Amino acid sequence: MSNQVPQGFSLAGVHCRIKRDPQKLDLTLVVCDRPSTGVGVYTQNLVYAAPVALDRSRTPSDRIRAVVICSGVANACTGERGLEDARQMARLAEAQCGAADDQALVLSTGVIGSFLPMDRIAEGIAAAAKQLGSSQAHLEAAARGMLTTDTVIKMAGRSVTIGDRKIQITGIAKGAAMMGPNMATMLALIMTDAPLDPATAQTALRASADLSFNCMSVDGHMSTNDTVLLVANGAAGGALLAGADLASFRAALDEVAIELAKAIASDGEGSTHLVTIEISGCADHAAALAIAKTVANSPLVKTAIHGADPNWGRIVSAAGYANVPFNPRGVTLHLNGCLLYRDGAPVQFDAAAVSKSIRDNRDTLVQLAFSEGTADVRFWTADLTAEYVRLNADYRT
Amino acid sequence: MSNQVPQGFSLAGVHCRIKRDPQKLDLTLVVCDRPSTGVGVYTQNLVYAAPVALDRSRTPSDRIRAVVICSGVANACTGERGLEDARQMARLAEAQCGAADDQALVLSTGVIGSFLPMDRIAEGIAAAAKQLGSSQAHLEAAARGMLTTDTVIKMAGRSVTIGDRKIQITGIAKGAAMMGPNMATMLALIMTDAPLDPATAQTALRASADLSFNCMSVDGHMSTNDTVLLVANGAAGGALLAGADLASFRAALDEVAIELAKAIASDGEGSTHLVTIEISGCADHAAALAIAKTVANSPLVKTAIHGADPNWGRIVSAAGYANVPFNPRGVTLHLNGCLLYRDGAPVQFDAAAVSKSIRDNRDTLVQLAFSEGTADVRFWTADLTAEYVRLNADYRT
Repeated sequence: MSNQVPQGFSLAGVHCRIKRDPQKLDLTLVVCDRPSTGVGVYTQNLVYAAPVALDRSRTPSDRIRAVVICSGVANACTGERGLEDARQMARLAEAQCGAADDQALVLSTGVIGSFLPMDRIAEGIAAAAKQLGSSQAHLEAAARGMLTTDTVIKMAGRSVTIGDRKIQITGIAKGAAMMGPNMATMLALIMTDAPLDPATAQTALRASADLSFNCMSVDGHMSTNDTVLLVANGAAGGALLAGADLASFRAALDEVAIELAKAIASDGEGSTHLVTIEISGCADHAAALAIAKTVANSPLVKTAIHGADPNWGRIVSAAGYANVPFNPRGVTLHLNGCLLYRDGAPVQFDAAAVSKSIRDNRDTLVQLAFSEGTADVRFWTADLTAEYVRLNADYRT
Repeated sequence: MSNQVPQGFSLAGVHCRIKRDPQKLDLTLVVCDRPSTGVGVYTQNLVYAAPVALDRSRTPSDRIRAVVICSGVANACTGERGLEDARQMARLAEAQCGAADDQALVLSTGVIGSFLPMDRIAEGIAAAAKQLGSSQAHLEAAARGMLTTDTVIKMAGRSVTIGDRKIQITGIAKGAAMMGPNMATMLALIMTDAPLDPATAQTALRASADLSFNCMSVDGHMSTNDTVLLVANGAAGGALLAGADLASFRAALDEVAIELAKAIASDGEGSTHLVTIEISGCADHAAALAIAKTVANSPLVKTAIHGADPNWGRIVSAAGYANVPFNPRGVTLHLNGCLLYRDGAPVQFDAAAVSKSIRDNRDTLVQLAFSEGTADVRFWTADLTAEYVRLNADYRT
């Protein structure tokens, strides 16, 4: 869709030797031309990284001027020194845009337990500040600067016309496993020129994250650094969004968040399939989500899809241990549109055809319907492959 | 270590063509020479198999005469016909030992969604009844008749002298994944000649299962057929066990259950390591168990151990998303006896030496200590390998 940079944002991505490979960017700087609303949604892991602690303390905010991101080192499990490093990284970014203390947010991703190379990061921030811009190339460099084991950059954008204003929402993200090979995390930064107050932005981001990043997994391992930020600078002008205007904005924000989340699941380490799991007919959202997660994280479901095996028993039995009450005789399953199981009983189906449809498509659709109510959820995951094992078993040795 | 058959039990294992390979036994019959106490612990999966439904309705019991087990077909997700097949399978066993209706228990394991081949099972039960005996060879054949993708038979036994009585406890089990390649389950049958009333037996079995089978996983996928049975025929004579005598019995029962559970984890599909996870210093048992399970089921922890990677960040961060509150600064980790992380901070250690100790040993010991209390738990799992993926992705295709 429309991946342009929203008004009032400038970006850069550079290589500053956090990563060894000089071809790989490892630092991203995003600057707002005015104090902006900034809100975040963070990992629920009790063992959370220093940048998460710093950003939590600074959001929601109505005065954000910069976001600085480094990849290669997660600055997680680094104690007091790690916190001080995160603060210093923010200070360096603030200095580049003439901002005061507490106006920058910080994201880090990479190895757990190592300290940030602060001298290189200082050089990187200074170099990035000289390259700031708002072109497609700038946006792509910024998206590249946050990657670790990702194989592709992840960007999504939407333009939405609200009254006489054209509002742009553009996000960049990284993540190839909820936690990669000793690399932590998924990160996303969503930028918009919409005028939003912090409370409204926080509510909108939380809701979008619940529909997108919180409905996605690769291996079920929650990282120490997961962060999604929304920065809204209001450069599109006009009054703060509210009512129907806000609803239009939020619908577009949902789309951006979902597109980024799907991009992460699709780039799951070693994956050969992007699996969409649609759960319907549950008593409430929590029930639907619990079932979706349990199915998504079953290694047996994931390997079956990798093997193009329409193994409905694994899917139905995974739902059965999600700690959610349901009537087993009210369960119906479709796989890639084909009915495999109806009202708690297997039905005749063309296994070879379903297997072929799994094998021939990167996208797999699992639709599991229950008879308890009307709540539904859509969840994305990757399959489990020998390549995932190789990537994660051979990381250090 | 004493694996003899308890007094009053006779066993047989035969091939009756449920499995194609004539070298593989697929039906086990166990007969008690008198009405016996029989209790069970069953899968918590809402989608549970017909034999689980039948056994649940018949236990606790003080009149069990037979247990019949088939492998190759799980009789799960088979509706009313499956229930009737399970009843008929019990009836056939009851007929062989002159028992009344409801005196036999039934276990099945294998493919989900297929019906039992009742004619073959009838032949198998008749053949097994002619071969019943109490020798080591009979015990091993019975243990073999319940296997699916297992690579070894699983048996454990203890003799315990209580007063002037010598009591024998002997168990057989199967399981190579919580759910194998479309094969369901772990099953265990523990036999004893101790005199136990049903309520006491049920309490003892529940407690033993909580220390053993409920502290073990291969892939975290809970099957539809998981069942542990304890049959106590009282052939050792004397009064019902109580007080200190019962405590001695229960200690031995715990040992048998743990040995069987470890054997299952160690035979995890494709595994190269048996991983023991010791969690200590938690506020309560539920907290310790939740952390142990979360660490055990993290694909990143499992692949790190497979790769001999002393990757403490993965272990500590897995604990952090177990939904259990703890102070991150009170966490200490040892791996194979080596200190890697103390009071929430990494310590210097010889990574090459720890890696070598993982690589050179099939057993890996993870010890994770917290500062919330005194509850602890010991949990067993297998590592995650490319061979596991191959086994489970290539099952049908």
